[in-house]
Amino acid sequence: MAQIQILNPDSLGKPLGHYSQITRVKASEFLFIAGQVGCDKDGKAPADFDAQCVKTFENIGKALASQGAGFGNVVEFTTYLVHSQDIPKFMTYRQREFPKLFGGGAYPPNTLLIIDRLVREDFLIEVSAVAAL
Amino acid sequence: MAQIQILNPDSLGKPLGHYSQITRVKASEFLFIAGQVGCDKDGKAPADFDAQCVKTFENIGKALASQGAGFGNVVEFTTYLVHSQDIPKFMTYRQREFPKLFGGGAYPPNTLLIIDRLVREDFLIEVSAVAAL
Amino acid sequence: MAQIQILNPDSLGKPLGHYSQITRVKASEFLFIAGQVGCDKDGKAPADFDAQCVKTFENIGKALASQGAGFGNVVEFTTYLVHSQDIPKFMTYRQREFPKLFGGGAYPPNTLLIIDRLVREDFLIEVSAVAAL
Repeated sequence: MAQIQILNPDSLGKPLGHYSQITRVKASEFLFIAGQVGCDKDGKAPADFDAQCVKTFENIGKALASQGAGFGNVVEFTTYLVHSQDIPKFMTYRQREFPKLFGGGAYPPNTLLIIDRLVREDFLIEVSAVAAL
Repeated sequence: MAQIQILNPDSLGKPLGHYSQITRVKASEFLFIAGQVGCDKDGKAPADFDAQCVKTFENIGKALASQGAGFGNVVEFTTYLVHSQDIPKFMTYRQREFPKLFGGGAYPPNTLLIIDRLVREDFLIEVSAVAAL
Repeated sequence: MAQIQILNPDSLGKPLGHYSQITRVKASEFLFIAGQVGCDKDGKAPADFDAQCVKTFENIGKALASQGAGFGNVVEFTTYLVHSQDIPKFMTYRQREFPKLFGGGAYPPNTLLIIDRLVREDFLIEVSAVAAL
């Protein structure tokens, strides 16, 4: 069983959102999860950014569950958005939903990046994850 | 020796290309390979996107081979393209070449991102990789 | 204690800057450090790119130090810049400062990417890191 510590040392600034600065993890088994997007199994994506956030993290949850893991196993997220106008919406999504997904406010480190485009033009968010078992 | 499982759980959508959703890996030794681009040792890059794809993955193959590893050791790719117009060409490259590089269709997770630019303006693709030994 | 080898195999081109091609690492304990930016604990970021570089790597150094680690523990960097015009300035920063941060020229692999924007419009550079203990 992985020993996962989610850490926010005093020497660094307070995280600018629902993430933490560092994961320290002792583990021999890892999951690398391909970037997940906000679409169903049939490939349909809602037009709405918030709905895509919900589906994206549902998909990550399904990937974790398939290996007997959960959000508490995540050691790192990388989040890609296509429009900078969606940054406040992403913050709002996280503020609303992350306390339900993660126990005790131990949110994993995240790097938030605004890029040109994802594989399909209608995808507005993609999140990749590393987890430890 | 690393135990590497490449997984596509039923609960997630079918991958949109030659990649898989999850790697599950039990290993104590990892390779982190800097983003490779489509140029020779002398720094020359072909102008053609497909030729840059070929060279990029050749370079990753050389990095792996230098440590006695091969494509079967890769646990994660991240692929950066500069032009969204190259997405179909990248899919075509992978469809043509990945079955030769990877045995049995076990393609590692990949996150495909379209960004503004790479370190040199003539670079059209860059791929970073993590492998387990 | 992690066994970290920083490698530049002859079969690959010479790195285009102060980074190396491969880290080979045998470790059971890792740090995943969220992307660090060039601001103080109070959230203030200098307008100057070079000053943001200095603060960004200071912040990574603080994250490492909080776990009893140092730059010699870093196994991978990913660097995001917002303006391609800053690429030469980043190279200059690294050339000047990395020999002080890293012993013996063993610079970790880095993937350098130019993207649209970071979480705040005034951030010009963000660097995420993985380290092994």
